[in-house]
Amino acid sequence: MTPEPETTPVDRDAILLTPGPLTTTLRTKLAMLRDWGSWDADFNRVTATIRKELLAIVNGEDSHVAVPLQGSGTFSVEAAVATLVPPQGGHLLVLDNGAYCKRMGKLSTLMGRRTTILERREDEAISPDELDARLNGDPSITHVGLIHCETGTGIVNPLGEIAHVCARHGKGLIIDAMSAFGALPIDARRVRFDALVAASGKCLEGPPGMGFVLIRQGALERCAGNSQSLAMDLHDQHVYMERTGQWRFTPPTHVVAALAEAIVQFKEQGGQPARLARYTENCRTLVDGMAALGFEPFLKPEIQAPIIVTFHAPADPRYQFRPFYEAVKRRGFILYPGKLTQVETFRVGCIGAIGRNEMRQAVAAVADAMRELGIESGVPAR
Amino acid sequence: MTPEPETTPVDRDAILLTPGPLTTTLRTKLAMLRDWGSWDADFNRVTATIRKELLAIVNGEDSHVAVPLQGSGTFSVEAAVATLVPPQGGHLLVLDNGAYCKRMGKLSTLMGRRTTILERREDEAISPDELDARLNGDPSITHVGLIHCETGTGIVNPLGEIAHVCARHGKGLIIDAMSAFGALPIDARRVRFDALVAASGKCLEGPPGMGFVLIRQGALERCAGNSQSLAMDLHDQHVYMERTGQWRFTPPTHVVAALAEAIVQFKEQGGQPARLARYTENCRTLVDGMAALGFEPFLKPEIQAPIIVTFHAPADPRYQFRPFYEAVKRRGFILYPGKLTQVETFRVGCIGAIGRNEMRQAVAAVADAMRELGIESGVPAR
Repeated sequence: MTPEPETTPVDRDAILLTPGPLTTTLRTKLAMLRDWGSWDADFNRVTATIRKELLAIVNGEDSHVAVPLQGSGTFSVEAAVATLVPPQGGHLLVLDNGAYCKRMGKLSTLMGRRTTILERREDEAISPDELDARLNGDPSITHVGLIHCETGTGIVNPLGEIAHVCARHGKGLIIDAMSAFGALPIDARRVRFDALVAASGKCLEGPPGMGFVLIRQGALERCAGNSQSLAMDLHDQHVYMERTGQWRFTPPTHVVAALAEAIVQFKEQGGQPARLARYTENCRTLVDGMAALGFEPFLKPEIQAPIIVTFHAPADPRYQFRPFYEAVKRRGFILYPGKLTQVETFRVGCIGAIGRNEMRQAVAAVADAMRELGIESGVPAR
Repeated sequence: MTPEPETTPVDRDAILLTPGPLTTTLRTKLAMLRDWGSWDADFNRVTATIRKELLAIVNGEDSHVAVPLQGSGTFSVEAAVATLVPPQGGHLLVLDNGAYCKRMGKLSTLMGRRTTILERREDEAISPDELDARLNGDPSITHVGLIHCETGTGIVNPLGEIAHVCARHGKGLIIDAMSAFGALPIDARRVRFDALVAASGKCLEGPPGMGFVLIRQGALERCAGNSQSLAMDLHDQHVYMERTGQWRFTPPTHVVAALAEAIVQFKEQGGQPARLARYTENCRTLVDGMAALGFEPFLKPEIQAPIIVTFHAPADPRYQFRPFYEAVKRRGFILYPGKLTQVETFRVGCIGAIGRNEMRQAVAAVADAMRELGIESGVPAR
C-alpha cells in the first residue's frame, strides 16, 4: 500500500516547506531501520544521550532536567501545563498573539486550570510592558505561558524580556518553543524559565512522534501530584526515568533513535548558531525571491522569525490556494496553508534539511506554477 | 551517535522477544524512509486506509469508527476512558487480574472518574459470573473495563462472555486489546463493545508511536465534551479527522506510513487467522523447548494466550535475571523481565516478524546461556 502520490510525477520525494513534519536527511531516516528493545540498556543509552544533549543546547545542564514525552508537541505543551500549574491555586496567564497561544489557553481551560488570556493582534509581538502591568494588577497569577515563535504567523516574541518580567514578579514561565528550539538562541543561564517545550520534528530535524520539556529542577520538585492525567504527568515520567533509565510507557523507539542521529548532525553542522544562519539565509532567499514575483509577507521584517513566512494571497482573481498548492506540489514542493481567519494567506517554511538551493528552486516552482495558472503577479490586494 | 550495543558482538540486530516494541520486517521499516507532509492529500490517504483496514479486522465497518491517536498504547487507553466515561454520572468498573488492569484503574481514578476495581488473582481469568453479580449489585456502574490479553502474565480473558454480560446489563464495554488485536479473533458483529484500544507496535507488527481506538458509533455521538484533556479527546479527534482527513495535531508520519505497510503484509499473509496460527506455533515451540530445559510456565495452558509467556525463574542458585538476560542477549535475543510482585519470573514474547526458526534458536540460546552461567536446570522452586 503506502499509496503512491497522485500528483507528483517525479521520483524524488517532495521537499516539505512545512514547519514540521519537515524534510529530514537520509542519514536521520536510516536510523529508523533498526528495532530496539525499549527495556534494553542500549536503548536506555540513546534516551540518556538525547536528554543530555537537549539540555546542552540551552546551557541548562545545571539548572534543568529534560523530560521526553510520547506524542506530538501539543501533548508536551498540555503535559507541561498539567504538571507545572497546580489544580488548586494555580493561575495561568496566556500571552496570546496567534493560533498556538489560543491552543495553550484552550487546553489549560479544558483541564480545569484557572486561565486568563491576554490577547494581542496577530501581527504584533507580545509586549513586556503590557505583561508587567497585568502582573501588577493581578497577584493571583502564578504562571505565564508564552509561544516563542508563533507558527500561526511566523512571529517571534521577545522571550528574554518576557522572562525578565516574569522573574522580577516571581512567576513561573512556560515557553512553547516548539518551532524555535535549536534555531533561535535560548540560554537558560540568562533566561529564567520553569518549562520549555519543543518536539523532535522541528528545528532539530528529526521525525515527528515525541516532544520534550526542559523543566527547572526547583520547579519540578513541587509538581508531584499536580497532573490529573497519568500519560501527561511529567513528574512521574521524570522520577521513573531517573530510577530505571526507561520511559514509563512504550517509547516511539524508531523516532527516538532518529532524533539521536539528527542531534549528532546538528552538532556536526555547528549547533544552534549554524542552524540559525542556514534558516536565516533560507528565509532571506525565499522572501527576496517571492518579492520579485510581487508577494508580500504578512509580518514586518523586524518581528519575522526565520522559521516560517506567511505571505498575503495575491489579488489576482485566478489565484486560489488549492490549485496553487497542487501546481507547486507537481513541481516538487509542499507549501502550507495560512492559519489566519481575517486575511487570506499561505505559509512557506524555511526549516528542515534544506538550504539556499532548495529555496531558490521553490521560488522558481512558484513562478512556474503562476504561469501555468495564469496568475500574473503575487501582489496582494490593498 | 546512536550508541553501538555494548554486549551484542554480532552484526545482525537482536531478535526482540518482547511484547512491543517487537521485531518488524525490513519492508515495514523501509516505509519510514520518506518524509510526508501531514497536511497533504497523499498522507491523508494513508491515514484513511489505515482507519478502514483496522475496522475490517474486526468486521466493524458498519458499527464502529477507528480513531488513531499519537503516543503509546497507554495514551489511547487513557483517551478511551476520558472520552467514553462521562465525568458526571460515569462509573467505571475495572476487571483486574494484572498490571495493565491496575494501570487502567489508576488512570481512571487520577482523571477523577468514579472507578471501582474488581480484583482477581493474576493466574485466574476474569469471571463472567462474578461480573454479572457485581453489575446486579451496583446499578451505578456505567462502563466496564477489560484487558483482553493481560501482558503482565500473558493470560487471555473471556472477552465474548464478558461482552455478553455487559450487553445484557446495558453497560458500555471498554476493551484494552493492546497485545491481542490482529492475533486473537474479535468480531464486532457478535461481540458488543463501546471501545477497543490497541496500538501500532503490537500484533500488527508496526513500529511503536501511535495507538487507535475503535468506537461504537452510537456511543461516540454522546461523548462530546467528556474529555478534560485536549490531546486525549477522541471525539474531537474524530470530528476533525472526518471533516479534514487530517490529524488534529502533528501525526507521527513515519510511524503511520510504516503501520500502513505492516497492514499490507498482514493481509498478504492471511490476516488474523494466519497471524494467530503463526503465534500459536511460536508459543508451542517456545514452551516445548523451554520445558525440555526444565522451565515451567506460570499459567495453566488453557488460559495462556500465544502472545507472551511468563516462566518461573529457575530454583538453581546460580540464576539471576540480569546476567541471564545479558547472556541470552549476547546470543542475539532480547528477553523481557517479569512483572509479578509475588513470584520471581521472566517473560518471553511470541509476537513480531518471527517464526518457528527464531523460537528454536531462542531456546538454543537460553540453553547455551545456562551452560555459560552454570545453571543446571530451569526447574523452579516448589
